[in-house]
Amino acid sequence: MAEVQNGSEAEKVPAVAFTALKPWLVVDAPKASDAVQFYKTAFGAEELSRVMHPKRKADHEIPLVLSAELKIGSATIVVSDTIDDSFATVKSAVTGGVICLETEDVEAALVQAVNAGATTEGEISEGDDSCCGGRVGKVKDPYGNIWLICSSSKKCADVEA
Amino acid sequence: MAEVQNGSEAEKVPAVAFTALKPWLVVDAPKASDAVQFYKTAFGAEELSRVMHPKRKADHEIPLVLSAELKIGSATIVVSDTIDDSFATVKSAVTGGVICLETEDVEAALVQAVNAGATTEGEISEGDDSCCGGRVGKVKDPYGNIWLICSSSKKCADVEA
Repeated sequence: MAEVQNGSEAEKVPAVAFTALKPWLVVDAPKASDAVQFYKTAFGAEELSRVMHPKRKADHEIPLVLSAELKIGSATIVVSDTIDDSFATVKSAVTGGVICLETEDVEAALVQAVNAGATTEGEISEGDDSCCGGRVGKVKDPYGNIWLICSSSKKCADVEA
Repeated sequence: MAEVQNGSEAEKVPAVAFTALKPWLVVDAPKASDAVQFYKTAFGAEELSRVMHPKRKADHEIPLVLSAELKIGSATIVVSDTIDDSFATVKSAVTGGVICLETEDVEAALVQAVNAGATTEGEISEGDDSCCGGRVGKVKDPYGNIWLICSSSKKCADVEA
């Protein structure tokens, strides 16, 4: 339980402030551009910025996405192609992310995601089996990430307010 | 390229609004409670809520975390123990998440995370190899997730403002 002890000590001196937190989805190159289009279609993502990799690899016909920032609701996610050793390390450490998306209309959101190319995982469930106690449906996107489409529960609404 | 075609159609009718986006970190049970403590220590996370699993499994000595909501900066993440079939599906689909955390003091943030029990992955790099073009260090937490500790670059600052 060394972490807990360290925790108690560190909590006395709250030090570092974080200005932003963004899930980062690393996509098998060169599919990041497709993934960005998918997130626009499936989740209404707005592209805030896109930085391309300066060197076009000989074995790729299209330039690679170094990082694309997408706004979904009031949050930002980052999408990148696997490019170099650093990215490969990240990709080997993870196979995908899980992101909870809250909406007032779970059914419509699921239809929109599936029409865009996501696959549903199981039925809509209600209650405890949810990130926030409401109704939740689950889809997997074509790039290996899981999206939980959740109703905004009362609890969540209180927390978010 | 069916997705892109669907995309063009769907973009004409922006339908579903999302009210929140939260990375969801699923932790091998029963370590979610430890993970929550770790995120408090490593990243100054504030616990907004915690819902415990109503049924204590016989083979677990401590109650399991159904979902704990943590605030880091202005964002929220959700941490859960793997509990039932639904969670197991999620866990089998992913091995961890990648989250980009922006801060003005990358070095201090890395020290804080490592003191809490994270392991560094490589050196601090600068420039292109970053989620937002600034300086970035990488740590892996004890629960299988990668955290990129990034300086808030000018570009990001503009986007966030």
